[in-house]
Amino acid sequence: MYDLIIIGMGVSGISAGIYAKRAGLKVLMIEESAPGGIINSIPKIENYPGIKEISGPDLAYNLFEQVNNLNIEYKLEKVTDVILEDIKTVKTTNDLYQSKYLLIASGRRPRLLGLENELEYLGKGISTCALCDGSLYKGKDVAVVGGGSSALTEAIYLSKIVNKVYLIHRREEFRGEDTLINEVKEISNIELVLNNEITDLIIKDNEFKGIILKDNKELIVSCLFEYIGYIPNTEFLKSTNIKLDHQYIVVNNKHLTNIKEVYASGDVTQKEIYQIVNAASEGAEAIINITK
Amino acid sequence: MYDLIIIGMGVSGISAGIYAKRAGLKVLMIEESAPGGIINSIPKIENYPGIKEISGPDLAYNLFEQVNNLNIEYKLEKVTDVILEDIKTVKTTNDLYQSKYLLIASGRRPRLLGLENELEYLGKGISTCALCDGSLYKGKDVAVVGGGSSALTEAIYLSKIVNKVYLIHRREEFRGEDTLINEVKEISNIELVLNNEITDLIIKDNEFKGIILKDNKELIVSCLFEYIGYIPNTEFLKSTNIKLDHQYIVVNNKHLTNIKEVYASGDVTQKEIYQIVNAASEGAEAIINITK
Repeated sequence: MYDLIIIGMGVSGISAGIYAKRAGLKVLMIEESAPGGIINSIPKIENYPGIKEISGPDLAYNLFEQVNNLNIEYKLEKVTDVILEDIKTVKTTNDLYQSKYLLIASGRRPRLLGLENELEYLGKGISTCALCDGSLYKGKDVAVVGGGSSALTEAIYLSKIVNKVYLIHRREEFRGEDTLINEVKEISNIELVLNNEITDLIIKDNEFKGIILKDNKELIVSCLFEYIGYIPNTEFLKSTNIKLDHQYIVVNNKHLTNIKEVYASGDVTQKEIYQIVNAASEGAEAIINITK
Repeated sequence: MYDLIIIGMGVSGISAGIYAKRAGLKVLMIEESAPGGIINSIPKIENYPGIKEISGPDLAYNLFEQVNNLNIEYKLEKVTDVILEDIKTVKTTNDLYQSKYLLIASGRRPRLLGLENELEYLGKGISTCALCDGSLYKGKDVAVVGGGSSALTEAIYLSKIVNKVYLIHRREEFRGEDTLINEVKEISNIELVLNNEITDLIIKDNEFKGIILKDNKELIVSCLFEYIGYIPNTEFLKSTNIKLDHQYIVVNNKHLTNIKEVYASGDVTQKEIYQIVNAASEGAEAIINITK
């Protein structure tokens, strides 16, 4: 029996873990894949206050080092179900764990376009992680789809590796930071494809060959990198009455959900600003509210 | 004429500066003393997510490096007055500056006990910065007053330099983090003086010699380090109608004050949680709200 279980070891979960352990709570953290969460796929972070420039995996490593430094107990297991009674029960693929308080910091994952054959070719021509897969396409042509800071960041990153990047966005204007927009416009091997959408994948002999656009133009590329938004990781909450909005967890300004002693923080929550430093701050705040 | 002036280059102000500059705003930052603000007096920071352990001045240096890296314009001048009309005017000891938006991130400073002779002996036996002054008292006996995480942190820091630390707190229980409370209790040269208060300073031949407690006991110490709370830096707002609560600036959940286009973030605002990572997060949030 723990005082607190934290689901998710991304930025918000680990920040919460640090504060919980230092506050003397008996805490368990559970993570399905790699500590650090979605930042593991970010090539370069320049807007985290206090660190001039760092790769996502390096920041993840630093966070995980803090976990180990404080001897915070954790399990690398997938959460399959939770039962939210007086005692909170978290079921994983391996075991079940119980606690008085629960903090859900399970984050969100990249959304896909929803095209035919898309899932089948994920990892074989379709990618949501330039940092993971970019080096496979050295000297080739690739496409990036999306209009926010993520799409811009990844296009910049890829432009240094590949021969050419087509940056496809369904609107005229990007939504991302000015710094990034200006940088993208100055890079000669990024070609902007604006006011356009991808309607189909070109598959030949079971190989991904490129994409077809709304105007029927074909782009022959070796990989399509997708940065078109996110889906919160809340499927494991299906048997609970926790309040969701578009699958995001609804919390109050104390990071408390509609269920007593169940908190949520970071990218899995319904909010306006999804920045790394906000996720970190919210994890700390949730714990301070729990310990009060 | 700037898009935005940020008053204060502490953690929150610099975080805001980074976000503002990257969002393409014409921004000016103004700081009275050293970039980094109050963190410059913290010996060791272990709860900033992403950095395992860092001194306050080193974190301040990293933040200032980000300011310089982004070529953010700044002035090291004292703000004496602001005029909050359609155009915001900030008067300093040197000049005046104007902008459309204003972000106040001027932080807060240590509070003093309010004893006779206290101000006169500040820097000559009375200190609010163990990191700045601790090394002057190598091998001597000193006192620390306060019951929160700051007092505990500074007592631990001083215990490694001085001969003996009296840690004076007016209650039986400390308010700080468990990690710190446990650490303090295990250090042999920290003597706890609980349920007690300082009523007087002992001054002889114009020199600080020690303190007198409520129970009339005298403690002969070379320095008294005070960590008993804070006063927000809002004096320069005296000619405005900005809404304050106990001198802290009142903001809504967008970090907007009661005055249009005037935002505030970090330790100068009225809130429940005053942590470094929260201050950083709030600076970023304020800017994202301004640019929306």
